[in-house]
Amino acid sequence: MNAEIIAVGSELLLGQITNTNAQFLSQHLSELGINVYYHTVVGDNPQRLEEAVAIAQKRANVIIFSGGLGPTKDDLTKETIARVVGRKLVTDEMAMQSIEQFFASRNRVMTENNKKQALVLEGSHVFPNKNGMAPGMALETETHTYMLFPGPPHELEPMFQFEAKPYLAAKLCDDESIILSHVMHFFGIGEAELELRIQHILDAQTNPTVAPLASAGEVKLRITAKAKTIAEATQLNEDMTKQLQAIVGQYQYGVNDDTIVSKTVEMLQRHELTIAAAESLTAGLFQAELAEINGVSAVLAGGVVAYNEDVKVQQLGIDRALIEQHSVVSAEVAAAMAIGVRDKFQTNIGIGLTGAAGPNSHGDQPPGTVFIGIDVQGDVKTYKLNLSGMRNTNRIRTVKYACHYIMQQLVANGYEK
Amino acid sequence: MNAEIIAVGSELLLGQITNTNAQFLSQHLSELGINVYYHTVVGDNPQRLEEAVAIAQKRANVIIFSGGLGPTKDDLTKETIARVVGRKLVTDEMAMQSIEQFFASRNRVMTENNKKQALVLEGSHVFPNKNGMAPGMALETETHTYMLFPGPPHELEPMFQFEAKPYLAAKLCDDESIILSHVMHFFGIGEAELELRIQHILDAQTNPTVAPLASAGEVKLRITAKAKTIAEATQLNEDMTKQLQAIVGQYQYGVNDDTIVSKTVEMLQRHELTIAAAESLTAGLFQAELAEINGVSAVLAGGVVAYNEDVKVQQLGIDRALIEQHSVVSAEVAAAMAIGVRDKFQTNIGIGLTGAAGPNSHGDQPPGTVFIGIDVQGDVKTYKLNLSGMRNTNRIRTVKYACHYIMQQLVANGYEK
Repeated sequence: MNAEIIAVGSELLLGQITNTNAQFLSQHLSELGINVYYHTVVGDNPQRLEEAVAIAQKRANVIIFSGGLGPTKDDLTKETIARVVGRKLVTDEMAMQSIEQFFASRNRVMTENNKKQALVLEGSHVFPNKNGMAPGMALETETHTYMLFPGPPHELEPMFQFEAKPYLAAKLCDDESIILSHVMHFFGIGEAELELRIQHILDAQTNPTVAPLASAGEVKLRITAKAKTIAEATQLNEDMTKQLQAIVGQYQYGVNDDTIVSKTVEMLQRHELTIAAAESLTAGLFQAELAEINGVSAVLAGGVVAYNEDVKVQQLGIDRALIEQHSVVSAEVAAAMAIGVRDKFQTNIGIGLTGAAGPNSHGDQPPGTVFIGIDVQGDVKTYKLNLSGMRNTNRIRTVKYACHYIMQQLVANGYEK
Repeated sequence: MNAEIIAVGSELLLGQITNTNAQFLSQHLSELGINVYYHTVVGDNPQRLEEAVAIAQKRANVIIFSGGLGPTKDDLTKETIARVVGRKLVTDEMAMQSIEQFFASRNRVMTENNKKQALVLEGSHVFPNKNGMAPGMALETETHTYMLFPGPPHELEPMFQFEAKPYLAAKLCDDESIILSHVMHFFGIGEAELELRIQHILDAQTNPTVAPLASAGEVKLRITAKAKTIAEATQLNEDMTKQLQAIVGQYQYGVNDDTIVSKTVEMLQRHELTIAAAESLTAGLFQAELAEINGVSAVLAGGVVAYNEDVKVQQLGIDRALIEQHSVVSAEVAAAMAIGVRDKFQTNIGIGLTGAAGPNSHGDQPPGTVFIGIDVQGDVKTYKLNLSGMRNTNRIRTVKYACHYIMQQLVANGYEK
């Protein structure tokens, strides 16, 4: 089984947006063991789209489309495929109901062109859209599988992951080969260094395969086994995991869908430890990231965003003389922020984040200099980072390091080993 | 002149990286008025690359490659094109010197396979690489222009912008046509409704063209004019903008690179109004988004993340009886949060955000119910949202609505019209 991904939209060809859908779909197809040989991007033009489909039919048996399912007449993916494969478009009642509901819940009037979004290829399997209006679909013909998804990533991603991926996995079962992927997450080691240390494994890999993936300050290894049974594939992955852990295990923090934020929240939940944050350069991002994890309200009390000096003094009770002596971007102020917010919110842990996010220096501290203070029940430690990314990348990395150090400090304090 | 962009690299097909090069190149080609009809991504496979080139030759006269110029045997873009067009590869002396220098300056020994990077297509125009080793090149044949660039964005981007773009611009001088794009941003109106209202314009469009683009709770219109001179193209775009504004102007908040957050910060800066936020469901995201805008520290004082009820009572001074009477997710509590945080941080504006982000209800309020309270110098208003997205989409939309309502309330208060 091999696939081609066709993204439809003139905004891609004009460079107004990046084709993140192709990356997302490729990652998941690769996890299923489906080869992707080509990505194509084509504009909102029926003739050129038809030509792209004709080319894809020759070189792939699964053709996956993103975009062009909206209500406007620029949106013509369904119409073009209907013509190419000789199918009618019919109204899907479930989709129509869901669109009507969408408008009703917003007290807005549904217009005629919105009904177009409920049209699907006759005989296709429909994927409901829980985050928008246009449903996705899969159409099986004798020679090909056509899959259509809406363009906005927040609609496509959950639809593919929870509806279409299991659909494809079920198709693959006929194949009698099981493909099982397992992802290991590492923090505190660079991609190049990690690769160097496991070079002999990367060179010798056959089954399972081992692929390094880099992502903003983290490294992942995806291990993928092919076997006749799930038990066999699981065993292959476990053996490889152990081999890798023997070399770089001390940097691993999680597996699969874990994030360093979710692991931190889990550790806090396990020990019923509450936390409050005082944020300067991250301006609320640390708390907003924690709040993405379900059930965080048991541990996250809240905190203070102290974007200017007065707030640090008045809201966190930091001595102005301390700021004047050491500057706002200093280990001393990070520690005082952590202690101040923990005291104010009466939590087990307080964290203070201060730094120069960039592009400018902050006093005599160059951009990318960040101090993190962590107060665990009175044990106060500070950490310094020298980051070299852009303003917002530095903020995101700071949040990840903050989580990393919280876990490290809890381990050092004997909460777990 | 029309172009196709071919990115070469199996890491793209495995979803390990996003094809940002295609976006970058498309933006710059669009600025030059060169139409891009297709993007293609192909792996490190000589046969499939050759097939992709054969297809591109039929549908484009400028074929632009990124990637596959490195030292390893996986890197085969030059070799494949040499074969396709029947040219030899020859060593470029300047490139060889620069590679030797690269190793010398790092005290590293140059290996044999690095010499491969100094090979260029015979008769091509060479673009030096100031940020890496592999040079770029442009080869003119009777029918096509082939342009090759290294894959790493920090090498490709400056090389294209400062070397290849002027090269293409010089070629274009014969063509005498200018293309100019202008984007209008709207909030508070759906894509379908907006399109319905301007249907007669969309139906009649020729030059400039008008294309609607949707993105997470917002709608954009891209207006693109073709003309002989910049003045003429600008005039065409301005005339169309006025026509559109006459119909849906009340929903427009900005143009081109504006975001609803950046426009809000600008409005606050213009009137020297400071702001503080009390965030519950957004947990710091409102402040973190504002903090992405340069120069925000003049207006954003900071705020409180009140993730649980005790924090709302203790840190914001909200009467517990009020919470018990109306529930945490209510207009009354949103207003009290806005008033409380404005008082505490002594700012001109206070904003309170509370709601059920989902997936669960909050008391008797269904997921997606959000209340926003805004206190502008004592003028307190509340707003209710019924959102239907996922947990995190709802948070992002809440931030956008918060900005929308802040601007609306400032206009209502006479700050601007």
